[in-house]
Amino acid sequence: MSAGVAPFERVLIAGIGLIGSSFALALRRAGVAKQIVAFDHTPAHIDEALHLGIADEAGNDPALAAGADLVVLCVPVGACGKVAAKLAPHLSEGAIVTDVGSVKQAVIRDVAPVLPPHVHFIAGHPIAGTEHSGPAAGFAELFDGRHCILTPAEGANPEAVARLQTAWEAVGSRVTIMSAEHHDRVLAITSHLPHLIAYTIVGTATDLEEHMQQEVIKYSAGGFRDFTRIAASDPVMWRDVFLNNREAVLEMLGRLHEDLGLLARAIRIGDGATLEEKFATTRAIRRGIIAAKQA
Amino acid sequence: MSAGVAPFERVLIAGIGLIGSSFALALRRAGVAKQIVAFDHTPAHIDEALHLGIADEAGNDPALAAGADLVVLCVPVGACGKVAAKLAPHLSEGAIVTDVGSVKQAVIRDVAPVLPPHVHFIAGHPIAGTEHSGPAAGFAELFDGRHCILTPAEGANPEAVARLQTAWEAVGSRVTIMSAEHHDRVLAITSHLPHLIAYTIVGTATDLEEHMQQEVIKYSAGGFRDFTRIAASDPVMWRDVFLNNREAVLEMLGRLHEDLGLLARAIRIGDGATLEEKFATTRAIRRGIIAAKQA
Ligand SMILES: NC(=O)c1ccc[n+]([C@@H]2O[C@H](COP(=O)([O-])OP(=O)(O)OC[C@H]3O[C@@H](n4cnc5c(N)ncnc54)[C@H](OP(=O)(O)O)[C@@H]3O)[C@@H](O)[C@H]2O)c1
Ligand SMILES: NC(=O)c1ccc[n+]([C@@H]2O[C@H](COP(=O)([O-])OP(=O)(O)OC[C@H]3O[C@@H](n4cnc5c(N)ncnc54)[C@H](OP(=O)(O)O)[C@@H]3O)[C@@H](O)[C@H]2O)c1
Repeated sequence: MSAGVAPFERVLIAGIGLIGSSFALALRRAGVAKQIVAFDHTPAHIDEALHLGIADEAGNDPALAAGADLVVLCVPVGACGKVAAKLAPHLSEGAIVTDVGSVKQAVIRDVAPVLPPHVHFIAGHPIAGTEHSGPAAGFAELFDGRHCILTPAEGANPEAVARLQTAWEAVGSRVTIMSAEHHDRVLAITSHLPHLIAYTIVGTATDLEEHMQQEVIKYSAGGFRDFTRIAASDPVMWRDVFLNNREAVLEMLGRLHEDLGLLARAIRIGDGATLEEKFATTRAIRRGIIAAKQA
Repeated sequence: MSAGVAPFERVLIAGIGLIGSSFALALRRAGVAKQIVAFDHTPAHIDEALHLGIADEAGNDPALAAGADLVVLCVPVGACGKVAAKLAPHLSEGAIVTDVGSVKQAVIRDVAPVLPPHVHFIAGHPIAGTEHSGPAAGFAELFDGRHCILTPAEGANPEAVARLQTAWEAVGSRVTIMSAEHHDRVLAITSHLPHLIAYTIVGTATDLEEHMQQEVIKYSAGGFRDFTRIAASDPVMWRDVFLNNREAVLEMLGRLHEDLGLLARAIRIGDGATLEEKFATTRAIRRGIIAAKQA
């Protein structure tokens, strides 16, 4: 048991994939959940969740939500509203409902209206993940030392927010509170745009002549392989992220386009001074990340 | 001593940075160099090379090349011609001269004409590196299991090519021979374009409002931090790569632009099917890289 954190009686994880199973395993490790229950629509995932000991009970029945004092939506962003609506009739008085979606404004827009007034909805997003998906990809250490952002609505119940915060801290995270709108802009540049670019560049390589493709794989150690790792992430999850954070992503993409145009021009006209200067400034950001222990 | 590889009498490393010192340490580990000598223009690097035991002799005198049977240019691509010209008067009959530059056509254009006819020039490029630079960044294992590309001119001496190949194999590499033109196209997509994009996206983040910058660092685990690692690479080295592989890089950038335009349009009009389909295809490339053990 984590010092001072009263355990939850029953935690429902809705969507027992990478994030859902990691959160379940991490709660168990911290001893802050008496019972963990998994809801999912994929029979194989339900079986795995039981088989791997991730959940005590698992199934596709929304009534699994009954009696849960913590409900965590761990499905793709575009499915949060639908899943919340299914679970809604079964939610207990005073339950905390949260999510882990990579976009916050759209999830709040979809989820908040379908929940009953007697639960506390507090949206959240752990900044931790891998390119793998499904229950077997989960591990208890995923959130250790990572940040978790909560974006409670104005007027959210302060005790519920504090209780959710202790849960994330118990699994190893550092919690920050901010507005959903601010979250979506920050994540557009730190996560969504990098993924979009990685998908694009790997896709561009896929369109090359057949014999070049083999060589792209063979010589990927030159930089490309980092992009392929990012671009191996779950297609459905990322489709939903882009559809649901359209404005911020397109804004950041517009800025990137301008900057890329400037560098392309410097290359074309042979302006080495501009290139060297631009390349030198980016080292500072890397140093900041190393200093912040997020490297 | 590596089985069957006759050691070189004296190896001159010109430019004792990351690649130069790694190659020196790896040759030593393999026991295929009786004497290793370093030439560099930076006094601190010369001192470090001696202090760290990377070279037996080191200095800024081009006469260090005298008696060397292997000379390896490990300076930025744009400096290869200049350094080769300095060393040229001191090169021994039959010496093998090679380089490790990330671009091949431009290095051959600059280096071949300044060398005396009594040496064998064979251009090369190990596909291995890190974002660090300088002699202290070097390590003997850098080339283990990695590819090395050699791009000998037509009519190059076959024994000299074979001898250089055994040297790269002795340090752990798998050697492939191809044309310089083909090399530059393959590397444009597997290495140069990824670096250009990483520099750009990190640069774009650097231009955000002050308070956003701190958050970019804080929440970099979402994907951005992989880009910052790539974008922390040596500015001078990369300036030279882009100036010297201009055409292939701009061609690949043009393709990327088109593809990015298609994805941006799909996001704008909410075309989830296109996004999901594009994102799904890129997983296959990642699997290829894992199968090829370059991950
Ligand atoms: N992966 C990351 O790096 C990361 C990081 C932070 C936050 N997130 C967020 O975490 C959430 C989950 O991502 P993940 O990586 O854990 O994905 P995941 O491994 O694919 O897990 C999602 C799980 O939910 C199930 N599911 C999908 N739709 C459902 C529905 N309508 N009803 C019931 N179950 C459903 C999935 O089954 P099927 O796959 O068979 O449909 C799967 O078992 C997403 O909102 C994502 O934005 C992800
Ligand atoms: N880094 C990689 O990932 C990688 C991978 C494969 C190939 N390469 C290629 O390897 C070569 C070296 O790169 P690196 O990463 O090893 O760079 P590095 O660590 O900066 O080493 C280059 C060394 O050469 C010195 N130097 C530069 N110009 C010189 C000159 N005119 N005369 C004498 N010494 C000079 C540098 O000193 P100063 O720094 O003080 O000028 C430094 O000591 C480049 O051609 C690059 O394209 C790099």
